[in-house]
Amino acid sequence: MNIVALAGGVGGAKLSEGLAQSVKPDNLTIIVNTGDDFEHLGLKISPDVDTVCYTLAGIADPETGWGRAGETWNTLSVLIELGGPDWFRLGDHDLGTHLERTRRLDAGESLSQITQTFCHVWGVKPSVIPMSDDPVSTQVITDEGILPFQEYFVHRQCQPHVTGFSFTGIDVARPAPGVLESILRADLVVLCPSNPWVSIDPILAVSGIREILKENNSPIIAVSPIIGGKAVKGPAAKMYTELGIPPSARAVAQHYGNLLTGFVVDRIDADNALTIQQLGLQILMTDTIMTTSGERRRLAEEVVEFGLNLIN
Amino acid sequence: MNIVALAGGVGGAKLSEGLAQSVKPDNLTIIVNTGDDFEHLGLKISPDVDTVCYTLAGIADPETGWGRAGETWNTLSVLIELGGPDWFRLGDHDLGTHLERTRRLDAGESLSQITQTFCHVWGVKPSVIPMSDDPVSTQVITDEGILPFQEYFVHRQCQPHVTGFSFTGIDVARPAPGVLESILRADLVVLCPSNPWVSIDPILAVSGIREILKENNSPIIAVSPIIGGKAVKGPAAKMYTELGIPPSARAVAQHYGNLLTGFVVDRIDADNALTIQQLGLQILMTDTIMTTSGERRRLAEEVVEFGLNLIN
Repeated sequence: MNIVALAGGVGGAKLSEGLAQSVKPDNLTIIVNTGDDFEHLGLKISPDVDTVCYTLAGIADPETGWGRAGETWNTLSVLIELGGPDWFRLGDHDLGTHLERTRRLDAGESLSQITQTFCHVWGVKPSVIPMSDDPVSTQVITDEGILPFQEYFVHRQCQPHVTGFSFTGIDVARPAPGVLESILRADLVVLCPSNPWVSIDPILAVSGIREILKENNSPIIAVSPIIGGKAVKGPAAKMYTELGIPPSARAVAQHYGNLLTGFVVDRIDADNALTIQQLGLQILMTDTIMTTSGERRRLAEEVVEFGLNLIN
Repeated sequence: MNIVALAGGVGGAKLSEGLAQSVKPDNLTIIVNTGDDFEHLGLKISPDVDTVCYTLAGIADPETGWGRAGETWNTLSVLIELGGPDWFRLGDHDLGTHLERTRRLDAGESLSQITQTFCHVWGVKPSVIPMSDDPVSTQVITDEGILPFQEYFVHRQCQPHVTGFSFTGIDVARPAPGVLESILRADLVVLCPSNPWVSIDPILAVSGIREILKENNSPIIAVSPIIGGKAVKGPAAKMYTELGIPPSARAVAQHYGNLLTGFVVDRIDADNALTIQQLGLQILMTDTIMTTSGERRRLAEEVVEFGLNLIN
């Protein structure tokens, strides 16, 4: 049974790790958001791809969920001492990834080839594919102007009031090799508990992806990143509020509209379940907070069992 | 009394440190070779400028003479693990310097402005000026083709047989702001014990520098980097041999020709002294190996006293 997961940052990486524990590597493909990618200090940085890869490789920082475990910060401390920008935290190990990715991109390799090579080195066995090898850049439209995602997310710490989003480059971005093929042979597609607006929507907006999801006709399920009206991490709940939508599991289910077959909510959101069912979705209610590796695996197993038993 | 030193790599940095201990900062200008500068992994690297600055700041690695003390190598180890080039040793702290220099150069600052800023941060008080803000790239002509300097020096470890040198960009490179002015008001110019071919010659080849050295009419002295027929560090002796010139203090004196007023040789080269005098040069014979900070200071004091007492 082939599983495809669409993933963004830390929440997506956690469920991906659970899936990697419970699905054979040859049967698992993780398609990762690249709308967060940006250039900083001449380095081409792919935060979501790195978070997923580091997590699957077991080298992610367990405290933050992003960056590397046992990281050191010597380069950044010199950079800051010399007057360089301090807002984007670049660890010494992490910098090795960015330098080598940038070198390979400049030499003409594609992001998906590079990701495959890095995964091989790190012993990551499932396929991890960036949504596109073409540049897509998420812009956050705010009351303080249009901000590139990392500017909004890291530099401004999500403070500006959000009024919308746009994905620069999305009109011409093609799915990376393997993206459409993996969806076409998927027996189940899982939308990870990532930010719907800025992690999953960019993937769904890449030309052909929505169409092939429909065409494939296998169940598509989403795991809610909103639990008890709050995001486990990141600005998803704040974004819903600022866009005039009370943040809830139901709001997430509604967000994905008729794309979904089923929906996974936390037990804490039992009161949402009925209204989500009324959207025509089948429901799995379970514990969805993934603190430990065991919790990730247990959730992934439940999600896969639930999803594969759905009839689309 | 104003002193100007022309300096290249480790030997130049050591005597510069001695001069910084014995001359008031306002009276000392160090003009540094930039022919070794190159781009690697998208970073603009100025090895000689960094070696001089790190040494003057007291943050250089005392073992190697280049790079930083207490350095860590986490970025490089990840880069190599991922298949990146391993031949140029980039430490984590050092990388902070290169990233911030590259960022500032890309933003339009000049290398000399950047060097001034970095020196201020590091508490380096004498003026350190790169020979030029325009790119000059030393090429080593060898029996295996023309190699950019770092390719010859670091990657090929000086193994190819040298037949000559060229300095790409030298025809249009202008002296950096302050270079000609400092020479014009110098009471003494010191050519540090740096490689004559690839550290001092590029500086002397920058348009206007030789002319202003003549025009200034103050004593110009050189400290021999060849001691007992060998270079203290680096390929200077090997280069002389391959170019058909037996390496010796005398060969260095002859190399600089009629530019010099005086010459500093090691006691070990007492047998060279007479033949150097026969070139029309006044001689200071002393201990020139600079292992300790105290030795650097003592040599610098002797060099300055000797030089200022010469009549050109």
